[in-house]
Amino acid sequence: MVPVAVIGASGYTGLELLKILARHPEFELVYVATSEGETTTQALHPSLEKVVQLPVEKADAAAVAEVAQLAFLALPHKTAMGFAKELLERGVKVVDLSADYRLKLDAYEAHYCPHEDKSHLPEAAYGLPEFYRQSIAKSRLVANPGCYPTASLLGLLPFIPYIKEDTPIFIDAKSGVSGAGKKLSAATHYVTINENIFAYNPIKHRHAPEIAEKIDDLFLTQVQVNFVPHLLPLTRGMLCSIYMQLEKPLDPLAILQDLYAEEPFVRVREKPVDVKSVAGTNFCDIYAVCNGTSLFITSAIDNLLRGASSQAVVNANLVCGFEETLGIPTFACVP
Amino acid sequence: MVPVAVIGASGYTGLELLKILARHPEFELVYVATSEGETTTQALHPSLEKVVQLPVEKADAAAVAEVAQLAFLALPHKTAMGFAKELLERGVKVVDLSADYRLKLDAYEAHYCPHEDKSHLPEAAYGLPEFYRQSIAKSRLVANPGCYPTASLLGLLPFIPYIKEDTPIFIDAKSGVSGAGKKLSAATHYVTINENIFAYNPIKHRHAPEIAEKIDDLFLTQVQVNFVPHLLPLTRGMLCSIYMQLEKPLDPLAILQDLYAEEPFVRVREKPVDVKSVAGTNFCDIYAVCNGTSLFITSAIDNLLRGASSQAVVNANLVCGFEETLGIPTFACVP
Amino acid sequence: MVPVAVIGASGYTGLELLKILARHPEFELVYVATSEGETTTQALHPSLEKVVQLPVEKADAAAVAEVAQLAFLALPHKTAMGFAKELLERGVKVVDLSADYRLKLDAYEAHYCPHEDKSHLPEAAYGLPEFYRQSIAKSRLVANPGCYPTASLLGLLPFIPYIKEDTPIFIDAKSGVSGAGKKLSAATHYVTINENIFAYNPIKHRHAPEIAEKIDDLFLTQVQVNFVPHLLPLTRGMLCSIYMQLEKPLDPLAILQDLYAEEPFVRVREKPVDVKSVAGTNFCDIYAVCNGTSLFITSAIDNLLRGASSQAVVNANLVCGFEETLGIPTFACVP
Amino acid sequence: MVPVAVIGASGYTGLELLKILARHPEFELVYVATSEGETTTQALHPSLEKVVQLPVEKADAAAVAEVAQLAFLALPHKTAMGFAKELLERGVKVVDLSADYRLKLDAYEAHYCPHEDKSHLPEAAYGLPEFYRQSIAKSRLVANPGCYPTASLLGLLPFIPYIKEDTPIFIDAKSGVSGAGKKLSAATHYVTINENIFAYNPIKHRHAPEIAEKIDDLFLTQVQVNFVPHLLPLTRGMLCSIYMQLEKPLDPLAILQDLYAEEPFVRVREKPVDVKSVAGTNFCDIYAVCNGTSLFITSAIDNLLRGASSQAVVNANLVCGFEETLGIPTFACVP
Repeated sequence: MVPVAVIGASGYTGLELLKILARHPEFELVYVATSEGETTTQALHPSLEKVVQLPVEKADAAAVAEVAQLAFLALPHKTAMGFAKELLERGVKVVDLSADYRLKLDAYEAHYCPHEDKSHLPEAAYGLPEFYRQSIAKSRLVANPGCYPTASLLGLLPFIPYIKEDTPIFIDAKSGVSGAGKKLSAATHYVTINENIFAYNPIKHRHAPEIAEKIDDLFLTQVQVNFVPHLLPLTRGMLCSIYMQLEKPLDPLAILQDLYAEEPFVRVREKPVDVKSVAGTNFCDIYAVCNGTSLFITSAIDNLLRGASSQAVVNANLVCGFEETLGIPTFACVP
Repeated sequence: MVPVAVIGASGYTGLELLKILARHPEFELVYVATSEGETTTQALHPSLEKVVQLPVEKADAAAVAEVAQLAFLALPHKTAMGFAKELLERGVKVVDLSADYRLKLDAYEAHYCPHEDKSHLPEAAYGLPEFYRQSIAKSRLVANPGCYPTASLLGLLPFIPYIKEDTPIFIDAKSGVSGAGKKLSAATHYVTINENIFAYNPIKHRHAPEIAEKIDDLFLTQVQVNFVPHLLPLTRGMLCSIYMQLEKPLDPLAILQDLYAEEPFVRVREKPVDVKSVAGTNFCDIYAVCNGTSLFITSAIDNLLRGASSQAVVNANLVCGFEETLGIPTFACVP
Repeated sequence: MVPVAVIGASGYTGLELLKILARHPEFELVYVATSEGETTTQALHPSLEKVVQLPVEKADAAAVAEVAQLAFLALPHKTAMGFAKELLERGVKVVDLSADYRLKLDAYEAHYCPHEDKSHLPEAAYGLPEFYRQSIAKSRLVANPGCYPTASLLGLLPFIPYIKEDTPIFIDAKSGVSGAGKKLSAATHYVTINENIFAYNPIKHRHAPEIAEKIDDLFLTQVQVNFVPHLLPLTRGMLCSIYMQLEKPLDPLAILQDLYAEEPFVRVREKPVDVKSVAGTNFCDIYAVCNGTSLFITSAIDNLLRGASSQAVVNANLVCGFEETLGIPTFACVP
Repeated sequence: MVPVAVIGASGYTGLELLKILARHPEFELVYVATSEGETTTQALHPSLEKVVQLPVEKADAAAVAEVAQLAFLALPHKTAMGFAKELLERGVKVVDLSADYRLKLDAYEAHYCPHEDKSHLPEAAYGLPEFYRQSIAKSRLVANPGCYPTASLLGLLPFIPYIKEDTPIFIDAKSGVSGAGKKLSAATHYVTINENIFAYNPIKHRHAPEIAEKIDDLFLTQVQVNFVPHLLPLTRGMLCSIYMQLEKPLDPLAILQDLYAEEPFVRVREKPVDVKSVAGTNFCDIYAVCNGTSLFITSAIDNLLRGASSQAVVNANLVCGFEETLGIPTFACVP
């Protein structure tokens, strides 16, 4: 068993990490921390009573290094890179769920803040296994993608070779409210969201540059990515509806099948996908259809799992040389 | 008071018609019918007990003509035109909420079925007041637009003069479940929809030709309209997210304000719109923002009111020479 | 027209007051205030744009007295009595939506705080029109009942004459989340409530003494009232399920009909009631059934209307000598 | 590995059985059937694609007996006993999720229909492990309790010794919509349930006799059980609020702790329980509080798991001599 740590256990992605790791056949959860510590997993998350009952420490890199070989960081942007740096210097491998290692330096500093771990940034692997499996397996630092880029990239990357030159991509993303985290806000008050739907930060959301950068990285193509997230009345799940223009008509399901048939965590569907069928799992379900040279792609994930915690454990499996599918949830919360 | 009839009172749009007309200062509800009759409004809709208590007849055009000057038809496609024809021949004005008079003959027959009232079809006015006010006021037959075209057209028409040549429009529409009507189906079973979202009939939905035809009619421009409806877990309301490419950057809010500032039932917003603020009203709220020459427009309506019944009464107001705003709901179901 | 004021316009009940009063045929809304002022109704509540557009002042009793004959107070407990006192002394009639005048002095101080307007407390009428119509009509100070007592009392009072001696009443109340107000809290975070239900403050909720006191006041009977409120995933509406033991079996619907048949805002139903059929209205729907001498009563109201704002306007109608039903909402938000 | 069959795989409880058994360390799922057969598990339940991919047969007792030692019956009442009889006669053990073996003969025939397997009925063990563990372990036929009786009995049985003589019990049960199954009905149409709550079959629900019979069986006490189920807008989960009168005041949490502290699947809570914390698990969470001699108990379960499928697998574990907790879900769908 490989001893692992979870730093940042109080939020929703921290909870999902605890739930996956507590059942994982090869990882042993030896250290759990929050910024404050002095509690237990079941006090933080009452649903873990009689299930996962571990002490929760005040996060400390030195203490992690003493007991764990790999750490999952479920921390806010900026806080994460401070910990990551210290852990890497102490020989602990890191899977970081924040944005801190997802972008190249310039893009990061343009959209977030000055980077405080420039030394390790270049060696971070982007944790989207279907497209970066090799580099993840060789890395000791994985930048776990955001939920929006995960669903968007898995849907649109197969079609980048066929995109019509100089045309933009439009991504209409719909997210469950858990994506906004546990922090209270008027936008996530029950009365605001129930019986409602609205876009937020349209066009200006900072996941657009993450998507554009990976398209460029993989296909050496600059594409204008127009990203519009919407908040809707459900807790878990994310649906991305992607609109593109192609050079010429094609059979989109055949292209998806060619690329993904053997992938354990992508399902190419013959009908429009829904979020329920993936909620609770690491699957990304995808469907696409053309109208002449206009292409519509729809992809669905669980924002907290494939969009965060279960993908993080897949990455940890790769980093540690385990079978990619080991201990990863595949049974959906249906009905 | 102008005596009016509602034919098709058992569904959701029929109920909304009853609720508006029972309070209208100039229309008197003298005849209510369903295909079966022999009941009462409060038996059909228990929430009307002690509120609207009228007998419900078996629909009969001759009986309507005896008592009413104008009839609202809230009937299925195809059934509607049979009644409309008979009513018009008997001198009764018609506001038809079905699709039967919305399209030109060829388009109708391509997407629905053979038309059975070709004689009246050419005189039907398209009931979108902001763009067809004059012709509605002169007509005795109004084709009330569908909910998807209403929200889409009000959002995108202001920008058609600025669209980049030969580029498609993408409409990502999100509808509450009441849009699917009262009929039971697996797709509208509570367990299917709750905590879920999915596209249905993507690209192939028959509201796309209605939208394209009106763009052509108003601007003599053929545009490829890609329409993708989604069903989401809320009862009332519809949000259309529209993506277009422009010839050059522009100030979209200024264009909307120029066109709509004086409109009583359109509100140009300075932030992304939400469906709650329009639910229960005839308002269409609109917001738009550019990313270079990429344009994002978001419009919200109540699918049963602005998308059906309250817009129908606005049209009846115009047909009868009343103030357009008379008796039209404007107070939203907030919170 | 009687000029009226709304003090406390920023919350949900304040919004509902604005919506009703702006349409009321005999009240003119001349003064709107919050604790901070310097805004407008449409800035506070964006859904009021193009509908109710009034300036919002910083609440000031002297300013109210200059322009209004009656004031609605939608303020927190304790703050309300400060204003009420000043307004009454200046000759302004008051309908208070807070708890400040609902209880006798001892009970109030036991469950809330020291009372700061002992002089006016004895003259307050309890604003449940079906049982206190006469005293409301004669009063200049009405204590509008809470939503839980309104739904509970209308359901159980008809059966108090038949209750088995020395047996308790159990009230299992289920409330929509709007009842908890606009204030953010972990309990009203979307993710907490969605797909969930739970009791809160069981047995200890302070609406129990309000219910017990009114039973005693009307029937000179002390009954143990066990009140358990639950929060459930809906925005508006409240269902009270009431369990009692009777001296002997009876026909509960006949008793309800005897009492309520002529009441404009109570509907005795022949099937279990639902909250949708009353949401958006001032109705209380009631159904009851016996199992031998065990009685089950179920009553439904809109917590913000019959449980607060529309009942307040009914009370104002009575105070001002208007028809009780004037301007009161009766059309439900169905579907 | 013990080879097992699932008969009735198309419904929600059938799906949950497949999900649990496919991961169970000691049961091997060798036979899956529906009444029609000729399909696959992933065609019946698209969320099982790439997860559980088994052929689905037309249900046949002889075929089951050839390959399986134990069968789970997730069939409608009446159909179940036909299969159970045949399977038992062929030596296959049965865990029946229907009502067919839950009641004594007279009660069954009074509330359901004539019994068609009177020979095996007397040997059926009632599958509530906390109270019937010994008899389940010795039985080859287990009658899995209904969801309402499971949540009710676990909550109220600890207090039966303290109940005041000749006083009734009131159970106010709130169920998620999945409890009504996959069958379409007006009551489970999305538009009916969303933003709504209502009681159905109050007092007359046929789970009341099941609860009363087990109280009598365990404590030789006849108690009047008044059972009122409510349907509310959530998919999974059930909350039972139970009201009783006691001989004298007591410490209800101490009594619950005494009985349940060592139980693996009951959690006594120090605050009111919620359904989210048990959804996805076999836990029953319970809280109780007194008001003098009035007692309020609140218990929460996942209606499809503890109320059906996971409790069925616990019973199968007992029947086969395995550790009771083997392969039973304990990780809740939180958030």
